[in-house]
Amino acid sequence: MADDRPNFEGYSCPLPIARYPRVMLAHGGGGKLTQELIEQLFVPEFRNPDLEQLHDGAMLTIGKERLAFSTDSYVVHPLFFPGGSIGDLAVNGTVNDLAMCGARPLYLASAMIIEEGLSMDDLWRIVHAMQIAAHNAGVTLVTGDTKVVDRGKGDGIFITTSGIGVIPPGIDIHPRHARPGDVILVNGPIAQHGIAIMSVREGLQFDTTITSDTAALSGLVEAMLAAAPGIHVLRDPTRGGLASTLNEIAGQAGVGMTLQEDAIPIDEQVRGACELLGFDPLYVANEGKLIAIVDPADADRVLSAMRTHPLGKRAAAIGEVAAGPAGIVTLKSSIGSSRIVDMLSGEQLPRIC
Amino acid sequence: MADDRPNFEGYSCPLPIARYPRVMLAHGGGGKLTQELIEQLFVPEFRNPDLEQLHDGAMLTIGKERLAFSTDSYVVHPLFFPGGSIGDLAVNGTVNDLAMCGARPLYLASAMIIEEGLSMDDLWRIVHAMQIAAHNAGVTLVTGDTKVVDRGKGDGIFITTSGIGVIPPGIDIHPRHARPGDVILVNGPIAQHGIAIMSVREGLQFDTTITSDTAALSGLVEAMLAAAPGIHVLRDPTRGGLASTLNEIAGQAGVGMTLQEDAIPIDEQVRGACELLGFDPLYVANEGKLIAIVDPADADRVLSAMRTHPLGKRAAAIGEVAAGPAGIVTLKSSIGSSRIVDMLSGEQLPRIC
Repeated sequence: MADDRPNFEGYSCPLPIARYPRVMLAHGGGGKLTQELIEQLFVPEFRNPDLEQLHDGAMLTIGKERLAFSTDSYVVHPLFFPGGSIGDLAVNGTVNDLAMCGARPLYLASAMIIEEGLSMDDLWRIVHAMQIAAHNAGVTLVTGDTKVVDRGKGDGIFITTSGIGVIPPGIDIHPRHARPGDVILVNGPIAQHGIAIMSVREGLQFDTTITSDTAALSGLVEAMLAAAPGIHVLRDPTRGGLASTLNEIAGQAGVGMTLQEDAIPIDEQVRGACELLGFDPLYVANEGKLIAIVDPADADRVLSAMRTHPLGKRAAAIGEVAAGPAGIVTLKSSIGSSRIVDMLSGEQLPRIC
Repeated sequence: MADDRPNFEGYSCPLPIARYPRVMLAHGGGGKLTQELIEQLFVPEFRNPDLEQLHDGAMLTIGKERLAFSTDSYVVHPLFFPGGSIGDLAVNGTVNDLAMCGARPLYLASAMIIEEGLSMDDLWRIVHAMQIAAHNAGVTLVTGDTKVVDRGKGDGIFITTSGIGVIPPGIDIHPRHARPGDVILVNGPIAQHGIAIMSVREGLQFDTTITSDTAALSGLVEAMLAAAPGIHVLRDPTRGGLASTLNEIAGQAGVGMTLQEDAIPIDEQVRGACELLGFDPLYVANEGKLIAIVDPADADRVLSAMRTHPLGKRAAAIGEVAAGPAGIVTLKSSIGSSRIVDMLSGEQLPRIC
């Protein structure tokens, strides 16, 4: 077979490929290597002002409308897990990316890559779960595509969803808007999704099953924006967990952050599972959590709006934004010691979403 | 490992799963089984007026804007082939789906599922090809996602692109608009893409290399709509080829179609390769071809607009729409014999796009 790779003369790959000649699992882990791939390969290639926002989605103006547009592939393994399935995840994840732009999610597209041999019944259960999730999130699935790959060239099913939402007037949410003095809020206990998946993979048994927190956060965001339209930053800490997401924001905004370890909500059982499995919960993926960074004057109002919503009952203020050092997130323990919480390096939990 | 598949009591899979208990390659082939999967599983689940248009993309109204929204996954094997790569294909294919809605494509999102071990250099070549294709099509890549799956659970790279375009006022294109008497146009010789891929896979050698026709058709469509804004139907005959696409349109519009075999442009070398490989060119995928169905009063104007465009030099009128029999496409040969050209059944060319 001829090598038909195009020859781009006078042009060389911007990534240090001598260091990483091949793509590794960690390049998809949501940590440092993912960031390197994006910042050193994708962004220089696709250079344009919309992409460089490096947000959860793009914010676009078409005619008189401000739209959010987002896409995510879901490759979670196993396909069904306590609390959900790849179907729920694919709908909720993209709905959440739109909500993190301050948008009201409206329409979804779904593209499925199915491995030959997937049982038709499993496919139907996944599709049905997508429809229920879409209904619950108030979005309509309007277009789709189906490809089938030969056995051994896929893994059951991969689903890519893309979404469009409308950003209401007056809303202006962006990671760069984090300012010194701002309060950092989270809507509930962290690390549930990642641990739910890992428990199934490792065959762990607990007193009660740890279930994924997968949920559409658009309703919660709507309630929060009604309480305080001036929210500075919204982000969902998925791959790479709370620590990686906060590091990303701190880097983009050129600010520091200080977290109070005691204030970060986490279920005892999840904490125990993390210890057992050797994971730091700050790096474990969430699928129904958001971080909000708000002006201190708005913090109480936003927090009580969160707590009156079913998905924010255990919302908490977990820290604040500092003037510096830029890009550094510090965790303070109850006894007053502090440590720097870096971005995830390497791959902690492959195929978690 | 516990079976965590949700139990949807009182609800049963609408597809005849006793007949097809597992997904087969042919379910992704663009023919009868793909149609069955869409019409019997996806549409009943996701029932809504936008999805039921069953067009190449959804047409949506947001505020005062009419938008087209489309998504497609690309799983072509091999990743590089004469005339292009999965990168070109992923950009051009989604641009074309938007153009077939009569939209001006504006923004693309790209989601990559990479198999661990893909060479960084190949990834970069693919990304670079995407950027060139996006530039040529006048679209901006605004957001993306990257997932990595373990070795042996993917196949190099799968790319899903989604796109947004704006439908100008006065344009109303839909498969259901095909009317008896309408003329069927195609912009050039068929079956090039599928044969280019198969030649590489089978290691065939010809006098000159058969190259894929992958191209963005948005410029051609713009020129055609400028000549005749009232074009009834536009479709790109990709998977399943010309025959399957015309069958789909005939079925949706409830009309018949008659094609003149002699009038259908095809390169001699492609015809020869089809004979050698045992393929009917009418079922072979195209990636830079479109079918236009137009009022007879517009046909000459559209045809000459096509012929003055680089991608329509060999455009031809290949047949016409008849009152009936509904859903039946008939092919007339030069000696006057005729045969019914059905939709592709089974899988002719897996992983062609």
